[in-house]
Amino acid sequence: MLGSLLGGNGAELITSTTGPQPADFADVRATNLAVVLRFVREHAPCSRADIAASTGLNKATVSSLVADLIDRRLVRETGLTENRVGRPATMLVLDGSPYAAIGVEINVDSVSAVATGLAGERLLTWRRSFSGGDSVNQGVAGVGAIVRRVVNRMTKEERHVLGLAVAVPGLVDVQGNVRIAPNLGWHDADIGGDLAKALRDPGFPIQVDNDANLAALAEQRFGAHSGASDLVYLTGEMGVGAGIILDGRLRRGGLGYSGEIGHVQLDPDGPECHCGRRGCLEAMAGIGAVLRKDLSPAEIQVEIEEVVRLARAGDPATLATLGSVGGSLGRGVSILANLLNPEVIILGGYYVPLAPWLLPVVQGELADRVIAAEAGGCQVVASTLGHDAAALGGAARVLDSIDSGRLPGGISRIP
Amino acid sequence: MLGSLLGGNGAELITSTTGPQPADFADVRATNLAVVLRFVREHAPCSRADIAASTGLNKATVSSLVADLIDRRLVRETGLTENRVGRPATMLVLDGSPYAAIGVEINVDSVSAVATGLAGERLLTWRRSFSGGDSVNQGVAGVGAIVRRVVNRMTKEERHVLGLAVAVPGLVDVQGNVRIAPNLGWHDADIGGDLAKALRDPGFPIQVDNDANLAALAEQRFGAHSGASDLVYLTGEMGVGAGIILDGRLRRGGLGYSGEIGHVQLDPDGPECHCGRRGCLEAMAGIGAVLRKDLSPAEIQVEIEEVVRLARAGDPATLATLGSVGGSLGRGVSILANLLNPEVIILGGYYVPLAPWLLPVVQGELADRVIAAEAGGCQVVASTLGHDAAALGGAARVLDSIDSGRLPGGISRIP
Repeated sequence: MLGSLLGGNGAELITSTTGPQPADFADVRATNLAVVLRFVREHAPCSRADIAASTGLNKATVSSLVADLIDRRLVRETGLTENRVGRPATMLVLDGSPYAAIGVEINVDSVSAVATGLAGERLLTWRRSFSGGDSVNQGVAGVGAIVRRVVNRMTKEERHVLGLAVAVPGLVDVQGNVRIAPNLGWHDADIGGDLAKALRDPGFPIQVDNDANLAALAEQRFGAHSGASDLVYLTGEMGVGAGIILDGRLRRGGLGYSGEIGHVQLDPDGPECHCGRRGCLEAMAGIGAVLRKDLSPAEIQVEIEEVVRLARAGDPATLATLGSVGGSLGRGVSILANLLNPEVIILGGYYVPLAPWLLPVVQGELADRVIAAEAGGCQVVASTLGHDAAALGGAARVLDSIDSGRLPGGISRIP
Repeated sequence: MLGSLLGGNGAELITSTTGPQPADFADVRATNLAVVLRFVREHAPCSRADIAASTGLNKATVSSLVADLIDRRLVRETGLTENRVGRPATMLVLDGSPYAAIGVEINVDSVSAVATGLAGERLLTWRRSFSGGDSVNQGVAGVGAIVRRVVNRMTKEERHVLGLAVAVPGLVDVQGNVRIAPNLGWHDADIGGDLAKALRDPGFPIQVDNDANLAALAEQRFGAHSGASDLVYLTGEMGVGAGIILDGRLRRGGLGYSGEIGHVQLDPDGPECHCGRRGCLEAMAGIGAVLRKDLSPAEIQVEIEEVVRLARAGDPATLATLGSVGGSLGRGVSILANLLNPEVIILGGYYVPLAPWLLPVVQGELADRVIAAEAGGCQVVASTLGHDAAALGGAARVLDSIDSGRLPGGISRIP
């Protein structure tokens, strides 16, 4: 209920409320703690007076809220400032030194882990090869092993883990159960529950979500278009999926299966797709359509570099392939723009190195196909977050929970 | 800010907040007034104790809130009830007798107007032929004339008009400006501002929105799937557009142009569309594709009845046409289901009389094309609201504003 009152971005797995929720004073205090924390996050260094002036909360309330946040070591004071109007004020900044948020991304042959501090600063970025791609148990064991190492590192640094979110390339329902992850060969797996067991109830919340959804949260918080309230992230990995943020929140649909653009049919006479259908976006604009052969993820990386080299050299066949892939990708992007009218659509994964050749074609298709003038104001850009965007998004998801008022309790006891 | 705090369904033109907003006590009271009003709407007759028990608000607060709602004549007391545990309690029901919400729908050759009471009961349903289809000024004059008559009728009934929302078949931006309404020949028109002038500042808010958006709000509040938090309405008029409700709120996209599925390309080799593109959904699954000729709206009604008669009689050519239109419609519906994973997709307009022949084909396509098992739980159904769904949705939009805490002030002065 609190979450729906707050409208925090993506902090809940789902919000089905269609109207206002009661606000009792506990809610109001939690709301206001989150408001002050967010204000310090965005405006530090700032004074209590700044917070009161900008939020409309009265000064006594702000002082009490700040005291609570300092007690939780989410905010700290940095001496006085002189160079401002009026008498010197004690300035506040995010503290968060005793905290870490962990995100993990499961790929077919590797696991990426990212840890960030409360301010989103990267504490750690690890990538491990991953053999457990075809058994859930091996997969959970592999993920558990890397998470345990990350947690140990954070503990050494005297950081309390606020939470873990795991990105899976597949259909994940709103409860966090993996329904099907084709490239991993997983189905109907409670990865979160299994991980909690493997980690022997680690004492922090574990969330599981689709990789495109978490990458979209990473873009919203850390990307070049951070703060955009209507944003779509398009994965360019072995599969193509979309993470959809509308009105500032991730939108999962009724059961959590939104964003499945990979198997939208672009052409009834198009090439056969591995799903058995014809002319799917994934078959016409996925990485497979660029490389024209089935490769292991390790080989794909090498092949993509070769494609980039050939494209730079002006190889006609390579440029023709990228032109046709860009055209199909543009048709898919136009569907997103016509249906959702986002401010920006961000291309991730292997689309990033290929962007110099794909983007101009995609933008041309967008201009031709979107019914609203100037593509309804929709830009298409390449992600700046790199290949572990979904892992970073896991950390973003954890920070979203904090920013929505789910503050760590009694942390003043932590060293 | 209040609106974003409340999360009321569709009451605001846009919410771009990505996090919690400060909650001061004025907000809290407005929030709680709305909570109590909604509780009475959903559970009347109910007692103050019922409200306190279910909302978590304390009894003194509830009594004060109820007194305020009674003063505004939004809620009234009905005698005591005996048949309950504990001592008899004074029961509360919605009052609203002095109020009306007005919705108007602009079509190519007609204007529909609907007025409802606070509880959503229909007070009036009018349809007038409409000559002003090709000039904004004539259009506004025509709409102004019917609205004036509706307002006069409401005044005679001693009802205060809470607001007016106007549905336009075209692109309407988040400020309510009509960017382009192709079938009306309108572009860049501030219908709301012009109407306010034509009505000489009527003293109630006027909102303008896309017809599919308002029809979706009508379904959410009054339809067979009312209360669904993830719902898409598909218009089946001369154009095809979608109204998208996710997590209980209408989603307009960055500028307000979401839901433009009519010109999503289903087949690069498909028939030419009046927009100049090829194989658009509108060209393959719009009413034009059923009738195979350009007709006036009046003629369409007659022709559709003839199509229904022929289909009932088992005419092979008619059944073949409906089969192919159903197949294309099913492909469009599958795109919505794959991208948005709604609980239900509702077919409106002329799709309703044709539903017995279209729905089985659409459902088959959905089962084949949606990547999630069992179409991700998405149902496809025909609307039960009839041809003035968008006008009814205008009234729903006005009631949404009230339910979100934008209560009429000082109404106790009204007779």
